[in-house]
Amino acid sequence: MQRWKLTVEYDGRPFVGWQRQDNGPSVQQSLEEAVLRLSGETVRVHGSGRTDAGVHALGQVCHFDLEKTFTGLKLRDALNFHLKPAPIAVVAVEPAPEDFHARLTSTGRSYVYRIVNRRAPLALDVGRAWHVTRPLNAEAMHEAAQVLVGAHDFTSFRASLCQAKSPLKTLDRLDVERVGDEIRVHAAARSFLHHQVRNMVGTLELVGIGKWGAADLRRALEARDRSKAGPTAPPDGLYFVSARY
Amino acid sequence: MQRWKLTVEYDGRPFVGWQRQDNGPSVQQSLEEAVLRLSGETVRVHGSGRTDAGVHALGQVCHFDLEKTFTGLKLRDALNFHLKPAPIAVVAVEPAPEDFHARLTSTGRSYVYRIVNRRAPLALDVGRAWHVTRPLNAEAMHEAAQVLVGAHDFTSFRASLCQAKSPLKTLDRLDVERVGDEIRVHAAARSFLHHQVRNMVGTLELVGIGKWGAADLRRALEARDRSKAGPTAPPDGLYFVSARY
Repeated sequence: MQRWKLTVEYDGRPFVGWQRQDNGPSVQQSLEEAVLRLSGETVRVHGSGRTDAGVHALGQVCHFDLEKTFTGLKLRDALNFHLKPAPIAVVAVEPAPEDFHARLTSTGRSYVYRIVNRRAPLALDVGRAWHVTRPLNAEAMHEAAQVLVGAHDFTSFRASLCQAKSPLKTLDRLDVERVGDEIRVHAAARSFLHHQVRNMVGTLELVGIGKWGAADLRRALEARDRSKAGPTAPPDGLYFVSARY
Repeated sequence: MQRWKLTVEYDGRPFVGWQRQDNGPSVQQSLEEAVLRLSGETVRVHGSGRTDAGVHALGQVCHFDLEKTFTGLKLRDALNFHLKPAPIAVVAVEPAPEDFHARLTSTGRSYVYRIVNRRAPLALDVGRAWHVTRPLNAEAMHEAAQVLVGAHDFTSFRASLCQAKSPLKTLDRLDVERVGDEIRVHAAARSFLHHQVRNMVGTLELVGIGKWGAADLRRALEARDRSKAGPTAPPDGLYFVSARY
């Protein structure tokens, strides 16, 4: 039995999300079916983080166990062959020790959230970024975002469906930068609550349009009440970038 | 009568190209129909450069004349409304003088060509980049590319269907850079021959994989014979970036 660690890129649009669900195709199911087709083995593929419907990944990490013997390169190429035509690409495959677990042993995840900030609609980035037409002040967003960095109770930025035992998380990084008409929000933490990045971005947008200041953001955080923070940003702009071990 | 200058972004995948053709939807036709719907006027939209089927634009420039009076902002928003759901976005609209002509008065065009250079297939960049699996040496490509910069007879890099009167062009810039597993080729010139960028990139790929050196590229250029240069790179990776006036 060999444990395999995969790094996976996907376009989240056609999927109900990372996790297997009855209501449509998931990334997890696509990977499990590709493994079954190439090896004849029924496996469970464990991801380092669940992504929602429409959320993309540049470097999702997952693992599974196989009885049959492969080389990493052979396994990568065979998985990619069997994944076609789903927009999922296995970018890297490595053998992993028995005690490696994509979710449980991860010590850090990072995401990027892309906003295209212009009046004109999106042509090249439809479904790949959040389209915000009101001018956003990226510097004000970045400055306010620092209120959220550190160890906090993130109840105000947590989805009602969130299954985490505790709302306490340590946010290591929340940087906002403007590149032309695009605004990128970089977030890193050991782990995140459900919808945490999208809820933080949706709230930072209020800062960007000048409706909120850093003090409002701090009040929302301290309220520990989801209704006191801003709306959930759409999935379109969110990318799972990497997981650390 | 007012002449209008437009800056347009599009995803080239669903189109037969910029130019109106009988065999499918074109960007030009989509724009002309949007103008007709919003103004009732039948116009000819002139582009600064024709792009082939599947080629994208970040900043194609075009112009047309309208009898009816609009403000630039109103025209931009109305055009975008009437273009839906085509993946075309009018990013900017400006009034232009009578003697402005998107193609004839342009003094420079720039393109970028994106190659994703990795073994794994593309998930997020399907149709948006050329997928090259053999490792490419971007530095060697950049060095060899300088052979093509300057005033030359580009017959070896010209499509057989090219309608330009002369194969003489001055290439101002041909830079190759690697950004992670992506290679970007930046090309700028007053104007280009049909397929010139794609033929140059297809030939530079031979340099990237080590099959050709700069001397081979020079020999191909000097041969003034299309059959002596490399293949035409696919349209997927090509983006019309901007036009100068």
